[in-house]
Amino acid sequence: MTETPGRRRLVVDLQSTSPHMRVPLWAAERIAAAAPDGWEVVHIASPSKSIGSGSNMASDETLAVITRAEGYLGYGVPAGLLQAAPHLGWAHSAAAGVGASVTPELRASGVVFTNSAGVYGEPMADTVLAGVLHFVRGLDFATRQQAASTWNQLPFIHRDLSARAEVRELAELRVLIVGAGGIGTAVARRFSALGCRCVGIRRRPELGAPEGFARVEGPGALDAELPDADVLVLAAPLTGGSASLLDARRLALLPAGAIVVNVARGALVSDEALLDSLNRNHLRGAVLDVFNTEPLPVDNPYWQHPKVLVTPHVSGVSPQHWRRVLELFEDNWRRWQAGTPLRNVVDLDAGY
Amino acid sequence: MTETPGRRRLVVDLQSTSPHMRVPLWAAERIAAAAPDGWEVVHIASPSKSIGSGSNMASDETLAVITRAEGYLGYGVPAGLLQAAPHLGWAHSAAAGVGASVTPELRASGVVFTNSAGVYGEPMADTVLAGVLHFVRGLDFATRQQAASTWNQLPFIHRDLSARAEVRELAELRVLIVGAGGIGTAVARRFSALGCRCVGIRRRPELGAPEGFARVEGPGALDAELPDADVLVLAAPLTGGSASLLDARRLALLPAGAIVVNVARGALVSDEALLDSLNRNHLRGAVLDVFNTEPLPVDNPYWQHPKVLVTPHVSGVSPQHWRRVLELFEDNWRRWQAGTPLRNVVDLDAGY
Repeated sequence: MTETPGRRRLVVDLQSTSPHMRVPLWAAERIAAAAPDGWEVVHIASPSKSIGSGSNMASDETLAVITRAEGYLGYGVPAGLLQAAPHLGWAHSAAAGVGASVTPELRASGVVFTNSAGVYGEPMADTVLAGVLHFVRGLDFATRQQAASTWNQLPFIHRDLSARAEVRELAELRVLIVGAGGIGTAVARRFSALGCRCVGIRRRPELGAPEGFARVEGPGALDAELPDADVLVLAAPLTGGSASLLDARRLALLPAGAIVVNVARGALVSDEALLDSLNRNHLRGAVLDVFNTEPLPVDNPYWQHPKVLVTPHVSGVSPQHWRRVLELFEDNWRRWQAGTPLRNVVDLDAGY
Repeated sequence: MTETPGRRRLVVDLQSTSPHMRVPLWAAERIAAAAPDGWEVVHIASPSKSIGSGSNMASDETLAVITRAEGYLGYGVPAGLLQAAPHLGWAHSAAAGVGASVTPELRASGVVFTNSAGVYGEPMADTVLAGVLHFVRGLDFATRQQAASTWNQLPFIHRDLSARAEVRELAELRVLIVGAGGIGTAVARRFSALGCRCVGIRRRPELGAPEGFARVEGPGALDAELPDADVLVLAAPLTGGSASLLDARRLALLPAGAIVVNVARGALVSDEALLDSLNRNHLRGAVLDVFNTEPLPVDNPYWQHPKVLVTPHVSGVSPQHWRRVLELFEDNWRRWQAGTPLRNVVDLDAGY
């Protein structure tokens, strides 16, 4: 590429190694076409890791062109980027989680860091609902029987009032959602519209209960809420305070037959404790879209566990995804150009 | 059992050959305990078929005690029953579909025939939603990959605007529901609460659109509605007019990528046409709970079809099921005793 002196530069670094996150051609072209007067857009062809909480290193190609850049559009702020970018003023992440991007260097840099939180809420909440209904309506039994061409109604049926019902009605369930941001709120709107009582756990309960939540409580109330949670949905950012949030003690507080869903980050859950709880038949099932190691290794026990539904970090997939990311990014680009406040500025102290 | 002369007799014939429909012990005891003064309850131990549309023959045990019965609680009105029951005044079916029960003999008998329509709506609609989300959110890909311990995001992702998206958002979908009774209405309430536009087809559209439906149309409008149906749900009774309702011509009218759901009766669908449409990749998937032959034979191609989700006629399963059946039946028993009109009287002319 040729440098054009005097032009303001945006570097677009969206060739994710994860197909789900990689920018499609049409979206890359749309970004170039949306450049305000006086801007040039430099597209990076080198692969980039898209998980903000992973080991995310800037490519040599990125480091070579970031020196003159004013704006950066990628996945978080990869390591090494800030040191090479003396003119950088704004970085936007196409991901929602910011994890490892929030470093002392970022704080010291004065760079405005915005993310794509909220873009993922609607499709992720659809997948949460799909995963909960998978267990609630016995589709785990159905798919296993189908694979064996076997017709058997018995696992579905609750014949003994003293036993636990494996197949239930959705509206009976009490749903506890950890995180009341874009994802947690989209989850609460769906379940409450279907008759479930939804309680949220959020860091600042004084901000109130968004639509869909019967009420919200602070993190200190989590343990007290767990015994009433037929469904526990983890939709919170990974921060120092949320790592291994779901451990053996808290799993034991859930009622027998509860369903656990994790669409946030694998590190929120103790895998050993979760597997133990599933193996002791305490939980009805677990819906897992995120893992401590991704891709999930072939020998991981989650794969063949009959009480686990594994989805390969695709809960946010949607035909609407890049349209939403670009609408947010382009709006911020106009705001940056106009010198007005940006949307979705990451709170560097809270870590999301 | 001993006969007690002068007592009014109810015969309870609920030992279904289908475990899902068989009366549990606690419910049988509750029926006996609910008998009004002057009534005796005779429980039949012989097995009974529970599908109203199947070849349902009264057992010898039933025929022996029905001679003196005033009331009958079973699955439809089995063949041979009426001829042996000169004193029968009322028959209640614990099933919703009445199919083969509506005979010239029943019309001529003057027996009041009530069914359990409405009892199944809530859990069946939960299963319809679970099945649609299974395909909409790519859980068909996920469960297949999980069985092979394989992580692959590609099938989930819509990278090319000109191609069809296999994984979508639920709220984008237009839902067409054939049948606006208890089941269809429960389906419409769920999908509309989640942002989908629901249109209903009902025999008498002049009765209006129940909650959840944007509008309802008569059977003559079905063909005109099919091209706008991303999801087609069959929730209509099987009658002379609805047999093979979903044939090759109507399947071709559905848009590419549509999802078909049948929770009503297998005979509403032409299996050959449905398989052909699935094999030509016209449909995204089919959720089938009912079949022309049940149990589904082991060599039926639905079992191993990657675009079919088979559930073994359990969409109505719920821990609330027998409580609801008994509430309806006991209310009708009190009404029969009091000589007031019964609920859920089957329209013998309409056939449901």
